[in-house]
Amino acid sequence: MEGKLKKFGFEVNEKIKKAPPSYSIKGVVSFLNENTNEDDRRLSISLGLGDPSRFKCFRTTAIAEDAVIEAIRSAKFNSYAPTGGIFPARKAIAEYLSNDLHYQLSPEDIYVTVGCKHAMEVTVKVLARPEANILLPRPGYRNYENFANLHHLEFRFFDLLPERGWEVDLNAVEATADENTIAMVIINPGNPCGSVYSYEHLSKIAETARKLGILVVADEVYGHIVFGSKPFVPMGVFGSTVPVLTLGSISKRWMVPGWRLGWLATSDPTGLLRKCGIADSIKNVLGPAPLSPTFIQAAVPEILQKTTEEFFSKTIDILRAASALCYDKLKEIPCITCPQKAEGSMFVLVKLNLSLLEDIEA
Amino acid sequence: MEGKLKKFGFEVNEKIKKAPPSYSIKGVVSFLNENTNEDDRRLSISLGLGDPSRFKCFRTTAIAEDAVIEAIRSAKFNSYAPTGGIFPARKAIAEYLSNDLHYQLSPEDIYVTVGCKHAMEVTVKVLARPEANILLPRPGYRNYENFANLHHLEFRFFDLLPERGWEVDLNAVEATADENTIAMVIINPGNPCGSVYSYEHLSKIAETARKLGILVVADEVYGHIVFGSKPFVPMGVFGSTVPVLTLGSISKRWMVPGWRLGWLATSDPTGLLRKCGIADSIKNVLGPAPLSPTFIQAAVPEILQKTTEEFFSKTIDILRAASALCYDKLKEIPCITCPQKAEGSMFVLVKLNLSLLEDIEA
Repeated sequence: MEGKLKKFGFEVNEKIKKAPPSYSIKGVVSFLNENTNEDDRRLSISLGLGDPSRFKCFRTTAIAEDAVIEAIRSAKFNSYAPTGGIFPARKAIAEYLSNDLHYQLSPEDIYVTVGCKHAMEVTVKVLARPEANILLPRPGYRNYENFANLHHLEFRFFDLLPERGWEVDLNAVEATADENTIAMVIINPGNPCGSVYSYEHLSKIAETARKLGILVVADEVYGHIVFGSKPFVPMGVFGSTVPVLTLGSISKRWMVPGWRLGWLATSDPTGLLRKCGIADSIKNVLGPAPLSPTFIQAAVPEILQKTTEEFFSKTIDILRAASALCYDKLKEIPCITCPQKAEGSMFVLVKLNLSLLEDIEA
Repeated sequence: MEGKLKKFGFEVNEKIKKAPPSYSIKGVVSFLNENTNEDDRRLSISLGLGDPSRFKCFRTTAIAEDAVIEAIRSAKFNSYAPTGGIFPARKAIAEYLSNDLHYQLSPEDIYVTVGCKHAMEVTVKVLARPEANILLPRPGYRNYENFANLHHLEFRFFDLLPERGWEVDLNAVEATADENTIAMVIINPGNPCGSVYSYEHLSKIAETARKLGILVVADEVYGHIVFGSKPFVPMGVFGSTVPVLTLGSISKRWMVPGWRLGWLATSDPTGLLRKCGIADSIKNVLGPAPLSPTFIQAAVPEILQKTTEEFFSKTIDILRAASALCYDKLKEIPCITCPQKAEGSMFVLVKLNLSLLEDIEA
């Protein structure tokens, strides 16, 4: 038996074996923790965890808890959900996103996913084909690379400019794109840069994408989590200029990443994506894919419609204060510089001056 | 814009386009409903729905609802779960499955999935490679074919024998397998046959698989849902003869398919699968995959340990009566024969005598 199984290997699946390792901040933090000198008694604070729910000040609202509990108690949502999600959830997400747009998304524009990461994977799978490539921001969120590797979609980077508030280097986008480029990804509010893009900058991104004939994938998982001078503007506002695939979830704004409730929206008032068959491709990819539990989907209308401004503003106030504290205290540390005070998301990006650190090589 | 997008098509992904359509009973039932004459006022009852939770008599136990609600209220499970699931869930599932074995599964043998369908996909992905093939039962559950197509794993069929209670035709298994066969799937209790395999038959399956040097994938999503003369025997009992990948979930026994809580277990007391790297392959496949919500995972120990025998036996009594009623009433319908009274799962398989039906061609 063992001989036969070994012959087949179960190191079998070459794709799984050959896939480059998945990198993530979580992985790096684990590596650091595992390699920390246990005898060193100095206090260390983990700043490498993009998960607000682990901190007591970030407990979700009772409205969200109650909505899920009510759905469970009703016993009406123990069945399978249809592909794309149950209608009330899709409708509520369409209305929630339309609040910030000058046009209405329909429930058919919305696909409920098992968190935003799943929406990312669905997007990459839909766009992947042998010759195509996608443009990703650098610094960015490593899972885009991981999924592109997994689904054999070539990716290329464009830089974000620290001296311009981590705006997209649009010249680099134009220089990097070719006739096989199918889309560019923006993450706004920015992970890991803590940046927030102005209406004007998003408008320029839309014009550039239109000129290149590529889609914009707008990762807005940190949507509305802004605490600087600029308001949050969803990329979908420019949907008439360029079709947008909008990715989001309740994970961050409601502090419940473990609930795994996200969405993919076609922010596409001209209907181009539907005409081109992308809506059908999304359905085809989602058909066999895992689904978000039905009772969590059932809670979505309550969660999106009933949560109070007080709940949101409390979070924003804590993050604003934390961002200011980080920025000020970082100035006191000689080997660290912070090019931009974080204005959104839950991250701050810093630069290490390695020459000031002992025993560390680049 | 449209020209460029059309060029890339978004009919783009040839794999998605070329994948054979996903067949399912649900799909056939939808097709029938859409093509039923609306003017025909005769009552029709849908018998094509493998979802107990839609019927009021099959409401889940308050113990399950309470466990999930308690996990939500605690606010301790709003964070991401680790790959493979949170430890208490893995431990509880290991203990639950070990109750029916003569050896102990460890938490490391268990991988929590987003329902049993997800466990099926993970299994197929782990086993897939260009030359390999897998043996599937006929009649069977179409999603195995769908996932094999999706992940480019060749599949071949072996027949189940209606005259022998839908037992596996082991001669056919031997005749169909070749040196590239990597595994065979059994579904017990049987979907869609309503069959339950005896200890003796399972033992013969194990011996055949051992002789061929192939794994057994045991789909036990209907585990313990038996109401005839034979008890439920998990395939893992024969794990020392042949390594078994056991698939299951709380969907059926607890009547909550919409909760999407399933598992994949390596029932492998000799440690062969770990040695061959299959455990690592499972982790690699699960790494980027969607996760079951953390608070549902947190409820698993309560659900598996505290549910009363009364709850289970009430379900079994209803199913036994329904099976007997179906079997008796079907005898009165000339064009339908039922080779075996259902003894397990939630299905009964019948044969249509098409020559007795008007306007229907095979």
